[in-house]
Amino acid sequence: MGLHLIAGGAGFIGVNLARALLDEGYEVLVLDDLSRGSREAMGALLQHNGFMFRQVDCSDPDAIDAALQNDTIDEVWHMAANSDIPAGVADYRVDLRQTFITTAALLDVMKRRDIKILHFASSSAIYGDLGDQLIHEDIGPLQPISNYGAMKLASEAQIRAAKEAYLDHASIFRFPNVIGVPATHGVILDFVGKLKQTPDSLEVLGNGTQQKAYLHVADLVRAMLHIRAIRQPYAVFNIGPTDEGITVREIAERVRDRFKPEAAIKYGEGNRGWVGDVPKFRYSVQRLLDTGWAPTLGSYDAVYKAVDEIVAQETR
Amino acid sequence: MGLHLIAGGAGFIGVNLARALLDEGYEVLVLDDLSRGSREAMGALLQHNGFMFRQVDCSDPDAIDAALQNDTIDEVWHMAANSDIPAGVADYRVDLRQTFITTAALLDVMKRRDIKILHFASSSAIYGDLGDQLIHEDIGPLQPISNYGAMKLASEAQIRAAKEAYLDHASIFRFPNVIGVPATHGVILDFVGKLKQTPDSLEVLGNGTQQKAYLHVADLVRAMLHIRAIRQPYAVFNIGPTDEGITVREIAERVRDRFKPEAAIKYGEGNRGWVGDVPKFRYSVQRLLDTGWAPTLGSYDAVYKAVDEIVAQETR
Repeated sequence: MGLHLIAGGAGFIGVNLARALLDEGYEVLVLDDLSRGSREAMGALLQHNGFMFRQVDCSDPDAIDAALQNDTIDEVWHMAANSDIPAGVADYRVDLRQTFITTAALLDVMKRRDIKILHFASSSAIYGDLGDQLIHEDIGPLQPISNYGAMKLASEAQIRAAKEAYLDHASIFRFPNVIGVPATHGVILDFVGKLKQTPDSLEVLGNGTQQKAYLHVADLVRAMLHIRAIRQPYAVFNIGPTDEGITVREIAERVRDRFKPEAAIKYGEGNRGWVGDVPKFRYSVQRLLDTGWAPTLGSYDAVYKAVDEIVAQETR
Repeated sequence: MGLHLIAGGAGFIGVNLARALLDEGYEVLVLDDLSRGSREAMGALLQHNGFMFRQVDCSDPDAIDAALQNDTIDEVWHMAANSDIPAGVADYRVDLRQTFITTAALLDVMKRRDIKILHFASSSAIYGDLGDQLIHEDIGPLQPISNYGAMKLASEAQIRAAKEAYLDHASIFRFPNVIGVPATHGVILDFVGKLKQTPDSLEVLGNGTQQKAYLHVADLVRAMLHIRAIRQPYAVFNIGPTDEGITVREIAERVRDRFKPEAAIKYGEGNRGWVGDVPKFRYSVQRLLDTGWAPTLGSYDAVYKAVDEIVAQETR
């Protein structure tokens, strides 16, 4: 059935993807440096017969090559990245190494080992702030406003050149905001964490009117496997829900209601939380819908489900 | 009047830019590792009062910072890159380090030293093969098909994010094929070199019907200084001639006629010379024309002038 390598497979999306691939009967080898992913996140996967984990720095091609030993890899899923956008704003080397050099290193190993199929977790952050334009996959100009988005776009560029030279197939998944468990970052986990520290009040960056669309990780994984099955030589797809999203205020209220109903919510000013945070975003997933995929949960239901999951995770 | 740093300033375009900046009364500090640039290329510049040269690896931020000593830099021109596209196809690390990591390193130093103005030599190669579409600056999708183009796009992405965070001004020059002296690479120099080796015959990659537009380096430098003077906060401009170009066959014949009139020209097959070489290209420079710049030479005249210059350079 084939062996799938997941780089960054001990992270939030990686472990959900691994479980789905195992469910479909594939074998899975996870490489991860455990800087952000963890053994705890992999949980029961570590006991699964078809699952292997090896700790390695995915920005080092020689280390990756050594970690692969004599295993023959059929497909590579590149999910390794710095997921902490403000950290990348503060120090560009974080995104450079974890988000971009990992791409260069994986491509290097794929070329050496003649591995022909790559699936890449890109991001809606490559688009930057395009105002109220509807963002489809072929839009321009691409002007990412965070190092995170810049290094995702840089990765896409290098993958495209590799596709021209030696890959048979590359999928580029432009992820939306994805939520679910095991959560390692993101607005819901932030709010839950703040409420654990100060149960009577919740401070929110910005005025709460910022609106974003969210996809549940279960729908994201379904979308990735769906796109993989289409087998376009170079497949670029926005992935996301079909609605326009949910406001920070509504998320804050949901977390408060489910976790600390007595807490007061305090808002800041302005509609941006940090440099590189795009306030509103009209994201077209029409290309993906046209292939027959549809999300099972919209932004509201995805947030409501994830809040329950994350509160459960954080109070275990 | 200000001190301008030119990274990669001992290369073909860098030395032409340095001369123009000196002519305008600025001081110029060139940093170059001399891997492709040379002291010979800098020539008489080295004797100029306003000119300084320091040899340094521009992919190493600490080395750049040390090389700048106590000098206060007003503006940075990033002209450092691997200009050998096939070399980057063979080994991705060439473009990665010389074309992209140089960008990361220069931005690092600019942030440390609070230098606010960057001018970057990007490339039409970021667009990839868009068929017969007219290529304007806001077009999408961007799918570079060479590592060279990928690392230029990666650099643009990182500069855009830096502009959001700490730069005041960034110019992105999307260069066409540029010709002139001191030539270090390119089709004219290749043909002259081949004819020096085998004066009776000239072998051409591809069938010679491949057509490209060429700009003379003097016009390119005028365009860069023109765009700089506009002072848009984030200025992205295609630069090029307004015609659709000249064929490889016509270039080969011109070189033959001027250098070895008795030589027979032998063509290969197909209309691509190498992986990543885009056969035909409709490049809009309307945005630049609208600001009042115009090239003084079209592709034919630019090639004719450069052939004379390069034959002179190679027979000195």
